[in-house]
Amino acid sequence: MQTAEMLRTHPGSANTDLAGVINELVACAQACTSCADACLAEENHLTELVRCIRLNLDCADICDATARVVSRQTAFEAGLARSLLEVCAEACRTCAEECERHAEMGMEHCRICAEVCRRCERACREALARLAA
Amino acid sequence: MQTAEMLRTHPGSANTDLAGVINELVACAQACTSCADACLAEENHLTELVRCIRLNLDCADICDATARVVSRQTAFEAGLARSLLEVCAEACRTCAEECERHAEMGMEHCRICAEVCRRCERACREALARLAA
Amino acid sequence: MQTAEMLRTHPGSANTDLAGVINELVACAQACTSCADACLAEENHLTELVRCIRLNLDCADICDATARVVSRQTAFEAGLARSLLEVCAEACRTCAEECERHAEMGMEHCRICAEVCRRCERACREALARLAA
Amino acid sequence: MQTAEMLRTHPGSANTDLAGVINELVACAQACTSCADACLAEENHLTELVRCIRLNLDCADICDATARVVSRQTAFEAGLARSLLEVCAEACRTCAEECERHAEMGMEHCRICAEVCRRCERACREALARLAA
Repeated sequence: MQTAEMLRTHPGSANTDLAGVINELVACAQACTSCADACLAEENHLTELVRCIRLNLDCADICDATARVVSRQTAFEAGLARSLLEVCAEACRTCAEECERHAEMGMEHCRICAEVCRRCERACREALARLAA
Repeated sequence: MQTAEMLRTHPGSANTDLAGVINELVACAQACTSCADACLAEENHLTELVRCIRLNLDCADICDATARVVSRQTAFEAGLARSLLEVCAEACRTCAEECERHAEMGMEHCRICAEVCRRCERACREALARLAA
Repeated sequence: MQTAEMLRTHPGSANTDLAGVINELVACAQACTSCADACLAEENHLTELVRCIRLNLDCADICDATARVVSRQTAFEAGLARSLLEVCAEACRTCAEECERHAEMGMEHCRICAEVCRRCERACREALARLAA
Repeated sequence: MQTAEMLRTHPGSANTDLAGVINELVACAQACTSCADACLAEENHLTELVRCIRLNLDCADICDATARVVSRQTAFEAGLARSLLEVCAEACRTCAEECERHAEMGMEHCRICAEVCRRCERACREALARLAA
């Protein structure tokens, strides 16, 4: 991922330290899209995975939108970025909690997805701390 | 738009009164995508429209994600939906305020887009009131 | 939807006759998001709806991207728009065929979604004919 | 990025060799979103960057949709994946060509973005060759 380089070469005054959270957001959107799909293929556990699929789809959509908004540094709107990062941390936490339950029962894709969601949640909160400073 | 019919035929207990806000979200995403593009074609005013384009792009992305999350009624997560609707109302208001400035200077696409954003902002707040009840 | 008005007030030479297909694309993305979610709530038929959910998710993503690309009229790239409209018509047809199978077995959300997909497929093909002329 | 791990733990028969193209698609969507934004901040070159911004936005949307569709391996629809990968390669090539023109004139963000687009174009074509086999 070239995220840091793109921020470094931005002609305006870009928050270069946001590269980390953008990378996590993009990775989390991919993991959640993939986990929803893997859950759909769990023929014998489908019913108990319905909430997981739903939260995966939400988390993917929210991470995608947040990655785009935070990537934009021109006329940066810190208030909106912060509000969105907060919702995104909440979406990641909710999805991680659900995936962790299925990870305990042996679902590997949920275990990996939960780790990515937790990492993204943490990155959102760190970005929030930095943007508030 | 078949939004209300889709909610009415949902096998679970769908919030059928969310059809209105979903329609506004979808319309607002389209208007903002289109307004960003129309602004890009304003050769003689491009510099003063940079913030408008940026906010249009953000508002389109946030409305799209919110429309998707709110459309999902299976294992509905009211807390997450509310947080997202709040950020979305904020994005719509910020974009509307910027578009209104350019509407005053005669930009018709900004005038229409501002109206759609204001309608969407209102619809988000009404949905919030309903979901909190 | 204000799609036609946005195209009419575009400062460049916008293809105003694309408003119809944009409206169908946006409606189809919403219907497919909603149908995937309704399928997820069909507790007793979940296994047989897995392919339907998958195609619904694909069709929503492709319609969303196509609506955005076709909404943009500045430096319009007719070749790319055409290629994308062709893939989108294919996605709509594939999804409609699957939904029609479940509509026959009484699933109302699939019946409505299939109608929207067929309408969108037709609108894509009409837009293709117009863009080729 | 955990893309390969997610495919490896998929309970169905996932095309694990698609991890590479998914990573490139996700990186390209981010680079294009970022390049459109960096172009918007080029106050003295804005007019000549209008087409670049437009193609960046298109390429980001198409790469995002393609990454999602290709990430889904349940009830994999090879025909649709191939058609979409072809359009995506075309979008990446068109965007790369435009960015390369601005890279020659010293725009670093366009140079990086062009490289990412070319890598993604190549990855799409390699995936196409593999899916056709």
